[in-house]
Amino acid sequence: MLVCCGLRIGYSLFVCSVLLAVEGSFMAVNDCLGEHEIIDILRQRLVLMPSMSVPFGDDVSAVPIGDGGDVAVLKTDMLVAKTDVPFAMSLYCAARKAIVMNVSDFASKGVQPIAVLVGLGLPKNLATKHAVVEIVDGLNFAAREYGAYIVGGDVGETGDLTISVSLYGVAKQSALMLRKGAKPGDILAVTGLFGKSAAGLQMLFDKTCVVSSENRAVLEQAVFNPCARLVEGLVLSKSGCVSASMDSSDGLAWSLYELMRMSGVGFVVETLPVAAEVVVFAEQNGLDAEQLTLYGGEEYELVLTVNPQSWAVAKAAVEAVGGNLIAIGRATIEKQLTLLITADGKQRCIEPCGYEHFKG
Amino acid sequence: MLVCCGLRIGYSLFVCSVLLAVEGSFMAVNDCLGEHEIIDILRQRLVLMPSMSVPFGDDVSAVPIGDGGDVAVLKTDMLVAKTDVPFAMSLYCAARKAIVMNVSDFASKGVQPIAVLVGLGLPKNLATKHAVVEIVDGLNFAAREYGAYIVGGDVGETGDLTISVSLYGVAKQSALMLRKGAKPGDILAVTGLFGKSAAGLQMLFDKTCVVSSENRAVLEQAVFNPCARLVEGLVLSKSGCVSASMDSSDGLAWSLYELMRMSGVGFVVETLPVAAEVVVFAEQNGLDAEQLTLYGGEEYELVLTVNPQSWAVAKAAVEAVGGNLIAIGRATIEKQLTLLITADGKQRCIEPCGYEHFKG
Repeated sequence: MLVCCGLRIGYSLFVCSVLLAVEGSFMAVNDCLGEHEIIDILRQRLVLMPSMSVPFGDDVSAVPIGDGGDVAVLKTDMLVAKTDVPFAMSLYCAARKAIVMNVSDFASKGVQPIAVLVGLGLPKNLATKHAVVEIVDGLNFAAREYGAYIVGGDVGETGDLTISVSLYGVAKQSALMLRKGAKPGDILAVTGLFGKSAAGLQMLFDKTCVVSSENRAVLEQAVFNPCARLVEGLVLSKSGCVSASMDSSDGLAWSLYELMRMSGVGFVVETLPVAAEVVVFAEQNGLDAEQLTLYGGEEYELVLTVNPQSWAVAKAAVEAVGGNLIAIGRATIEKQLTLLITADGKQRCIEPCGYEHFKG
Repeated sequence: MLVCCGLRIGYSLFVCSVLLAVEGSFMAVNDCLGEHEIIDILRQRLVLMPSMSVPFGDDVSAVPIGDGGDVAVLKTDMLVAKTDVPFAMSLYCAARKAIVMNVSDFASKGVQPIAVLVGLGLPKNLATKHAVVEIVDGLNFAAREYGAYIVGGDVGETGDLTISVSLYGVAKQSALMLRKGAKPGDILAVTGLFGKSAAGLQMLFDKTCVVSSENRAVLEQAVFNPCARLVEGLVLSKSGCVSASMDSSDGLAWSLYELMRMSGVGFVVETLPVAAEVVVFAEQNGLDAEQLTLYGGEEYELVLTVNPQSWAVAKAAVEAVGGNLIAIGRATIEKQLTLLITADGKQRCIEPCGYEHFKG
């Protein structure tokens, strides 16, 4: 799989070059696999549960409960300071983000999280009352923000702040919005505009960036206080209008390629969903708004497809809960790993890029 | 809470002294809280789920499913190389241990794990095919060994190998063997003998230790291939004979104190469950077998209480699946945080010690 680097920045608070002893011999840093190659090894070597409710590699996992069509929905995602927490982010916001990352995956499947488990890895210098209170308050606030409770967890010592969150919820299997299911002709849609997180990170790391105080506040919010589109995901699931869905945490382009791969379709993107603040920021700083929009990542919008006959119902359902559903293109029969943009009258290929651990 | 250091060793593969920036200011290493103090802050500050099926702080968490008395049982525990993986342990065994640690908690409640999620944090030098295959095979083997499947997870970059495992299972709430419930007069029992992990670690770290090749193999096995007492836990739960139970991963003494605290009883330990190999190893190397037995930790036996009338049934149930149930004492009405030993004809207090992160 072709993977070029995303814009997400490895916010190295410190760089730790280690050699880990394995069975007595030292392994040097070499032949580094990417995150997706590692996941491929997992997929190939694991004995998979027979007739899984959700395909391995979708945003969540699910296990049947009884015979009534209900499934227990499960998800784990780990926040690590080195790659997921910008320098200027408070511990409270980092902890909140660890929950949001996971809730976003539940949102993309249309599942209400019920219970949260937290594996908290602290470096010794954060094992202070002040730091722990900030982290716990951020975790608790985020769980309650999305209607869930933290029911348990584990605390251990790590070199870098590590917050491993697991979610549990229950759903009807038939109501889960999977990555597969998009049909040619379906409308491609997103729940919000993109590029603010990438622009915000750029702004935080490059103090020479030109930005108005109003735009600064918007971009900072996108980085420090991202939101999962849970209410949107829940009403979309209830509407039954969505044919395929995932979140956009690894970047819009990456999500589009994943939906294409899982559904066996292509996409034509006709309107790039770029935020107004990002257009201005890009112009003022000589950056490419399209790049910030497509490859930024760290954004938690839903990317989904809807049958054209159901579009009005789906859009109304999302708007009724205060959200947006923005059509940006359509699914095509050509099973290509390229996207086409017609905004400037020409058709251009968009590379299948996104942030990938170990390659970033 | 009085906490002195356990024997578990911080197997620092590398020492990373970091200062993490928090809201622009640097925090120095100071006022370091212990693991249990951190858990107390969690308990105090979290908004807890109303009428939790299992008290916060027990070995697992549980959430009701429907109205039939079933609960979804959840657990997360994080293995970090620095504190949980001895230098000479293979990646395969480390990965297997990450699952065993979690299964042991399910075993102590009498719950069959169904699904496993894995949050895998790899340092860049372990993002190689060889290392990933070893880790995945260890994880898969352990999951299947205990009848569960790995259904999903997450891969990210960390400074130190970090394997965060989450388990999901289903049980009747009434069948869960909680930490609370021991009654004065109940028989105190364990599923195996103790001290081998602590002796094994000592042996691995001190190459001058005297040890026979036969004992070396036994002690190495205890460190590298620990077993969770799942079949024992399942039959004990089914028997309905157990009044209180937990595992012994933080040390036998710690587990006894926890059972005492949660059940509001005291314990008299009449027979210390020390393994024969540990007695020999301690004698040959001038060590204290009692210390190795009580404070070692990294052992995954069950520590539980049984009403005397049910003892024969409980013992027979465990032996029928090839296990052992060893009576080591009894619960007392005196709600004391001390234990008494009568083995040498005298009564001695045993300190409430165990391994604790950040204090180790």
